[in-house]
Amino acid sequence: MSDLLITNVRPEDGAPSDILITGGRIAAIGPGLTAPPGTPVRDGAGAIALAPFVEPHVHLDKILWGLPWHPINVPAGLRAMIDNEVEIRRNLPYSVEDRAGRLMRQCVAMGSTHIRSHIDISTFYKLDNVHGVLAAWEQMKDAVGLELVAFPQTGMMIDPGCADLMEAALDEGVSVIGGIDPGTIDGDPKGHLDSIFGMADRKGAKIDIHLHESGELGLYEMGLICDRTAALGLQGRVVISHAFCLGDGPPDKVAAMIDRLAELQIGIISAVPGEIAFPPMFRLANRGVPCALASDSIRDTWNPHGNGDMLDRCWLFAFRSWCRTDAELRACMDMGRARGADLLGLQGHGLAVGCEGSLVLVPGENRAQVLVDRPTRALVVKSGRIVAEAGRYTGPGAV
Amino acid sequence: MSDLLITNVRPEDGAPSDILITGGRIAAIGPGLTAPPGTPVRDGAGAIALAPFVEPHVHLDKILWGLPWHPINVPAGLRAMIDNEVEIRRNLPYSVEDRAGRLMRQCVAMGSTHIRSHIDISTFYKLDNVHGVLAAWEQMKDAVGLELVAFPQTGMMIDPGCADLMEAALDEGVSVIGGIDPGTIDGDPKGHLDSIFGMADRKGAKIDIHLHESGELGLYEMGLICDRTAALGLQGRVVISHAFCLGDGPPDKVAAMIDRLAELQIGIISAVPGEIAFPPMFRLANRGVPCALASDSIRDTWNPHGNGDMLDRCWLFAFRSWCRTDAELRACMDMGRARGADLLGLQGHGLAVGCEGSLVLVPGENRAQVLVDRPTRALVVKSGRIVAEAGRYTGPGAV
Repeated sequence: MSDLLITNVRPEDGAPSDILITGGRIAAIGPGLTAPPGTPVRDGAGAIALAPFVEPHVHLDKILWGLPWHPINVPAGLRAMIDNEVEIRRNLPYSVEDRAGRLMRQCVAMGSTHIRSHIDISTFYKLDNVHGVLAAWEQMKDAVGLELVAFPQTGMMIDPGCADLMEAALDEGVSVIGGIDPGTIDGDPKGHLDSIFGMADRKGAKIDIHLHESGELGLYEMGLICDRTAALGLQGRVVISHAFCLGDGPPDKVAAMIDRLAELQIGIISAVPGEIAFPPMFRLANRGVPCALASDSIRDTWNPHGNGDMLDRCWLFAFRSWCRTDAELRACMDMGRARGADLLGLQGHGLAVGCEGSLVLVPGENRAQVLVDRPTRALVVKSGRIVAEAGRYTGPGAV
Repeated sequence: MSDLLITNVRPEDGAPSDILITGGRIAAIGPGLTAPPGTPVRDGAGAIALAPFVEPHVHLDKILWGLPWHPINVPAGLRAMIDNEVEIRRNLPYSVEDRAGRLMRQCVAMGSTHIRSHIDISTFYKLDNVHGVLAAWEQMKDAVGLELVAFPQTGMMIDPGCADLMEAALDEGVSVIGGIDPGTIDGDPKGHLDSIFGMADRKGAKIDIHLHESGELGLYEMGLICDRTAALGLQGRVVISHAFCLGDGPPDKVAAMIDRLAELQIGIISAVPGEIAFPPMFRLANRGVPCALASDSIRDTWNPHGNGDMLDRCWLFAFRSWCRTDAELRACMDMGRARGADLLGLQGHGLAVGCEGSLVLVPGENRAQVLVDRPTRALVVKSGRIVAEAGRYTGPGAV
């Protein structure tokens, strides 16, 4: 909770201003501000000041970021890919703590000051991945907010004991119950969803379910999620990640589902896949469905792509959506900032007096140009503390 | 035609070697090379040496790269978009020469040492755009190869006199006859194609046709192009750019067309659009169709995206094609290098003794990692001359 005066910036590409942060919150925005004696002062050099990026879906325990190159040899079939990951990670000479710390530092260096991460839990892993990620975060709590999801990557109903571990994780720093492709992984949509909604209900946890299953199957399972959200009064506390079925399902059923998602305030997160259809994010947003972009899989045993840069991800979304006007480009950038903050229920996100004193400085003409060019982040500030400079993490635990 | 010894590089990520260039060509590759006295020597510092990138489709006269941000306000409809461009360019306080030079320098800085550019010709523009681009190139001929296409962007049959100007351009430095959407722009597929094939036949020019028209219409017109290519014996001299119909047409007709393209050695260039289907490039390549990636529209009145970086474009192709293994990633990079050189008929492209002494140095572990990370190009060499360093153009005409 630091103090900082940043002079000569253009908040959200507006008129030149200073930004005063006191006690970790924005105290004033305007020209010619003066700070209490002893307040650190930083010259913004005319940069654009942006409210920070939000990373609502990564896998901190899977990451190989910053390690020697890992050639991907992906076997065919989802089950084989899952088993492949477990086998590789079993023999990896880098701890979860080490790897998770690398990715968190990268996310912060790129301007994200809050992360939601799914963490693999199984009877093989037990809670080791949760403990490793939390150990990494312990060293850099002042640089980034973190919310963890108990994620049954390798299956839950087919791994007796997994659900108990997931529920136990809620007492050890995890606050969201995850799920994945109930039909494909567990072969039991009803059992899978009843189990995770039961945990969330008992413990007051939120829910965030990976749903890759497409078309009619995905929409069917989304309907089951809606039923349980309504029955348990979990409106506003459930998120569906990926949700490809909203991109490739029958139009009439998709339209009806979008209405239902809006009514139940079920959020949709997309990582903007390159090769397949993804949910119509602007249509969802315009209908009132909470929605946001995310990185998802980055440089891990599944996938060599990605970099933890939400500005880059927002640009990919613009490119995949053929957005070209300045207004469209700004809206794409907000899919990785304000909309992500709204979806995660973060308080005080934004560049306004009273908000958290977190921001990102980038050189540039305006937000549209910044989105297209994705310049190096000149400065990242978290609650008044400088945590990255010139694209490099400089906060607590910097290496 | 310069001499240069580059020490301590890994050619195409192979074993550490030196590369000796004499008289603009690669004279030797191997460890511990010595150069004739007076030869400039450059320490490669362990970087990967790559054969250079090839940019086979840009629009040097349309570019706004490096100028103040131009907000896109794209009107609806292709004709309105075309007219919009003419109107904006009419009032632009930057010459074609100025703008074309900016983009050529950017392309070279990113590692492309050969460019094919379409240039708008019409009775309004006359040959002014050709002359402007050639004036820019005159200052940097030693840094980049250039091939120009006479492009009837605003229509040819509907603009009496345009075809004569295009044919006249073949006597003023243009070597390829272009075309565009014969059904949509000119409303006359037969007339449009007969006209451009006639010019190419009379003048011994090559052909490169923009074909955005999709599905059945695109395949029909592609058939007309094949008919004329066969009738005039223009095998290996015709290229179709974009060719969306190969991505979205009926599978049986697409399959038959791919066979015909291979037989006639008609090349396919894709700029990898973000939001629509594009040709199955690997399938085409495996069937023996010449094919390559390109940037196309970059930061102009049509589109704010793009950066003239073929490594970036190759990565986008990998992302859009869900390529993940090292072999796949290397093949994606070759779509912007060797395959582009083959498609354009460039002689001596490659890192081998006797080839043109042109190469790109990048820091990195291997080509797959370089494709994914797209590091700053440390050095770009054209025929033995250093033309860019650390991502900045330093060749003749540098500003």
